[in-house]
Amino acid sequence: MATGRTEAFSDGVFAVAITLLILNVLVPEVRDGQLYAALLKRWPVYTSYAVSFLTIGIIWVNHHTMFSYIEKVDRMLLFLNLAFLMTVVFIPFPTALLGAYIVTPENSHVAAVVYSGTMTAMGLTFAAMWIYVGGHKDLLNETFDPVAARKSAPRFGAGTFIYGASIAVAFVSAYICLIIYALLALFYVFDQLSDTGQSKKDGEPAS
Amino acid sequence: MATGRTEAFSDGVFAVAITLLILNVLVPEVRDGQLYAALLKRWPVYTSYAVSFLTIGIIWVNHHTMFSYIEKVDRMLLFLNLAFLMTVVFIPFPTALLGAYIVTPENSHVAAVVYSGTMTAMGLTFAAMWIYVGGHKDLLNETFDPVAARKSAPRFGAGTFIYGASIAVAFVSAYICLIIYALLALFYVFDQLSDTGQSKKDGEPAS
Amino acid sequence: MATGRTEAFSDGVFAVAITLLILNVLVPEVRDGQLYAALLKRWPVYTSYAVSFLTIGIIWVNHHTMFSYIEKVDRMLLFLNLAFLMTVVFIPFPTALLGAYIVTPENSHVAAVVYSGTMTAMGLTFAAMWIYVGGHKDLLNETFDPVAARKSAPRFGAGTFIYGASIAVAFVSAYICLIIYALLALFYVFDQLSDTGQSKKDGEPAS
Amino acid sequence: MATGRTEAFSDGVFAVAITLLILNVLVPEVRDGQLYAALLKRWPVYTSYAVSFLTIGIIWVNHHTMFSYIEKVDRMLLFLNLAFLMTVVFIPFPTALLGAYIVTPENSHVAAVVYSGTMTAMGLTFAAMWIYVGGHKDLLNETFDPVAARKSAPRFGAGTFIYGASIAVAFVSAYICLIIYALLALFYVFDQLSDTGQSKKDGEPAS
Repeated sequence: MATGRTEAFSDGVFAVAITLLILNVLVPEVRDGQLYAALLKRWPVYTSYAVSFLTIGIIWVNHHTMFSYIEKVDRMLLFLNLAFLMTVVFIPFPTALLGAYIVTPENSHVAAVVYSGTMTAMGLTFAAMWIYVGGHKDLLNETFDPVAARKSAPRFGAGTFIYGASIAVAFVSAYICLIIYALLALFYVFDQLSDTGQSKKDGEPAS
Repeated sequence: MATGRTEAFSDGVFAVAITLLILNVLVPEVRDGQLYAALLKRWPVYTSYAVSFLTIGIIWVNHHTMFSYIEKVDRMLLFLNLAFLMTVVFIPFPTALLGAYIVTPENSHVAAVVYSGTMTAMGLTFAAMWIYVGGHKDLLNETFDPVAARKSAPRFGAGTFIYGASIAVAFVSAYICLIIYALLALFYVFDQLSDTGQSKKDGEPAS
Repeated sequence: MATGRTEAFSDGVFAVAITLLILNVLVPEVRDGQLYAALLKRWPVYTSYAVSFLTIGIIWVNHHTMFSYIEKVDRMLLFLNLAFLMTVVFIPFPTALLGAYIVTPENSHVAAVVYSGTMTAMGLTFAAMWIYVGGHKDLLNETFDPVAARKSAPRFGAGTFIYGASIAVAFVSAYICLIIYALLALFYVFDQLSDTGQSKKDGEPAS
Repeated sequence: MATGRTEAFSDGVFAVAITLLILNVLVPEVRDGQLYAALLKRWPVYTSYAVSFLTIGIIWVNHHTMFSYIEKVDRMLLFLNLAFLMTVVFIPFPTALLGAYIVTPENSHVAAVVYSGTMTAMGLTFAAMWIYVGGHKDLLNETFDPVAARKSAPRFGAGTFIYGASIAVAFVSAYICLIIYALLALFYVFDQLSDTGQSKKDGEPAS
């Protein structure tokens, strides 16, 4: 099976999931003169929107990168991809939970646990796809570089590990968790940017 | 008519329908300290989310497989596909019904009947597409293998039959129905995985 | 400009609009034992879902057909397409109105006027696209057959005219309007099916 | 990296965001005989729907045009595109705010500030993409014309500047802001139409 339609379907799911995040940003029902205060009070909603948008975007970029190495898709990979997408589509829910409850003392911990747990599940299913294709070299194309993949594996694993560890942090403070989520997203942005820089220096001549 | 745009449209519909399932997973409105219990209580919502996500995913995989055998699309196939998609897009509704009412003694039966009925309708319209293209060989490409298709037909038919039979089961217990839906989804995952294994053994040389 | 990305964008909009129709089918909040009656009572919601799904599907098929004749897209066509899509995306709203208010004596007329008006606007913007490309032959490819187009024009125009006339019918009975919408959808299904039959007989040799 | 999948993802996001606008157009819950008045009263909802639909459509056309000049995508451009899409996906929220609150004396200013601010952010991230690809000529293909780009830059910049200036106007009147948004959308429609006209006269021979 060629990867074309799997990528198209995955892109569609990513596009809908990332856009549904805006449905968490609800119009407050307030009397005249109170909209400004009502909007300000909802800063966790916008913050969690931005963090989840960036995070789903980065996951999409990584999914994009993974599939650029994949030549064909077998049923097992199709279903691993489906399990992975199930966690991605779930993200708007913990995002809404966090936006609604981060300011409440006790519920905030529960919301952060659900967010951290969803992200850990996402990281694990993504890792499962890498491990599967790593063990089925016939699914990969010739651009796949096992040495580079082995070098970048710890960095991917670190993200999943940190999301997992943030489940424990969630019992301490949901605010710290939100900062961790934001920093992880930013880390991956810049880490991957430097990657591009390197690969250009090492390999591609300036065109 | 080439199949490209029909597949793209179908994939879009599948991607949106599968992602809209998350809109059934609502943030509970509770006082501080009650979120954990409120989330736990809603286990049917997450279960039906997971079962329907996996089911739509498998339907997509099968639709994918069917269209890999189809060379061109005529108007009749286009409209059969539309009727089929109408049942797929409907799935989030019985999913929400089941998530909301499986724990209530009497409403649970109604919810399960609607779920089973939707799935039966989906199976029947999917079968109608297979039967139609089976009778219009000019729509198929050369990769279509009528012997293999005849061999796999009972397995597909069995799924539709079991969904149909689960309408009767719904009057007994919606919980048993939910287990049937989950087992059917898992059965198709593994059945199709073994398929891939076989076809590799029989036909394709290791690459 | 090639038509590829315009078609992809349009297909995406169609796919989302047709799928959002399910959001009108809400889970009723009822006490145990009342779900069956509550669901039965909402038959206008399912009927309008089915009619609008089929209608958007047929519009998509016709849009599909139109773009199969178009070689390239200029800015004017891009914006006419946008105005047309604006009416398609609007369809879930009158669908919801009709589902909610067809059973109320007076509001039903208003709901039907909005539905008929939306469909008339859709027909007019679609006609505007045909007229525009008809006057810009350089946008068309060689498969376009002006004689066949002229022959099919009255049939397309008739649909728009009937939708327009149904605005007047809406003041009499919203039920009659709903029957007209359903018949129009079915008429286009069968009309286009017979088209395919004819074109096969006339033109294409059996493959 | 080729641009194909980035464009497909962006198109998906655009298609979902533009279609989600209809979710702001809610069915009013009224008693029989009051639907007509209730719908009339909500004119700001339809107006803001139309203005935002046209605006997102024009943004999509411009994004389309930009990517027609882009040969390949690096990570930085991928993330700039993501930041840009984050503002596009946000548009349904200020659209809903404006539709709900433009008729209230004080809240209307807040709603218009949020709308203007979102559009300014959209314009700035879009400009950031142009500036980035302008400084990385290796990402562009041979159809890119730097002279034409420099000539059209003030016109794009003007739009962002006017959106920015409308933040100040929002403190005066949200109605004037809405007129500005509508005029800007119409200006870009016609400006770009005349563009097409010119380029045809200057460059392309009639085909």
